[in-house]
Amino acid sequence: MPSPIDFYFDFTSPYAYLMSEKIDALAARFDRSVIWRPFLLGVAFQASGASPFSVQSPKAPYLLRDFDRSAHFLGVPYTLPAKFPLATQNAARAYYWLQDLDAQQARAFAHAAFRALFIGGRDISSSGEIVALAAEQGADGEALAEALSAPALKERLKAECAATIANGVFGAPFVIIDGEPFFGVDRLPQIERWLTSGGF
Amino acid sequence: MPSPIDFYFDFTSPYAYLMSEKIDALAARFDRSVIWRPFLLGVAFQASGASPFSVQSPKAPYLLRDFDRSAHFLGVPYTLPAKFPLATQNAARAYYWLQDLDAQQARAFAHAAFRALFIGGRDISSSGEIVALAAEQGADGEALAEALSAPALKERLKAECAATIANGVFGAPFVIIDGEPFFGVDRLPQIERWLTSGGF
Repeated sequence: MPSPIDFYFDFTSPYAYLMSEKIDALAARFDRSVIWRPFLLGVAFQASGASPFSVQSPKAPYLLRDFDRSAHFLGVPYTLPAKFPLATQNAARAYYWLQDLDAQQARAFAHAAFRALFIGGRDISSSGEIVALAAEQGADGEALAEALSAPALKERLKAECAATIANGVFGAPFVIIDGEPFFGVDRLPQIERWLTSGGF
Repeated sequence: MPSPIDFYFDFTSPYAYLMSEKIDALAARFDRSVIWRPFLLGVAFQASGASPFSVQSPKAPYLLRDFDRSAHFLGVPYTLPAKFPLATQNAARAYYWLQDLDAQQARAFAHAAFRALFIGGRDISSSGEIVALAAEQGADGEALAEALSAPALKERLKAECAATIANGVFGAPFVIIDGEPFFGVDRLPQIERWLTSGGF
């Protein structure tokens, strides 16, 4: 059994959302599983000195256009949310909390959170929205709400972010296969070739 | 006759070099010509607040790997030059000087300069190397050497850089087709779809 693929992402990244709709099926064609690893882009940007998305940036008009065009290109439904970008601490913490209880439920929650944001336009920065989304997947909403406001889960996400950066991740989506790093949803064709040939 | 495609690039960008080996043939399949427009990434980065490539950056190991992998993926010969990145004022100025005299010669020179850097490992920041490369394409080396040290050509490149930034270009390679912007050689599949369908 080949080793699993690592998929690093932040829930606020449209390109990460597009990757989230593609990577599992691609990996499955090569008998690979995928470990989903949400982190906070803000922490990675601070480490690398990069700037987060800003509507004031000269790149913003291009990026907004490219999000839309890339979604169409990949056949994934997408609408720019009214609130964008947004804070994803609650979503990422909820993911790790669920992951420790039920990996399948965590995966379903992650898909639901991405789609709530990029199809439904919901404000997934709010802990209430996150608890509701998790409960829709069958999770214990009350227990999650409690966990979200306790220090342990905050420390857990901090540790995950530190590990992510230590692994060379500086943006999202970021996929690592057998140590080979791929940054951006536009690397899907190179990921496919790598999985096919085990090299360049 | 459909309108020409604009191809903006800096000679020091490996991704721009890869695009330079692909864009003309792709455009020709759709009866399009391509206008090559060298500019200085440093000027664009200053305008947008972005950082130039640096071996000190946390992204550097990834980028160096990705240059190589992307070249293999696209089937283009590539070796990281010993001197990288390097200053491309002379190359860009020579291009515009040649362009005004003989567009075909300018195109041949641009290919030669990219290949001298990314296949031959030659130091194309030097005006002597640039004059030699132009002379190899049949240009008048002596006249070019004189033009390179006169103010008019410097002003010309300044104006081209300003026009490039005014067109929304913030990186390289950057391709604009009928007003639609595409950033990065990884947008080749989206460029092809756009040329096929005239839209998303």
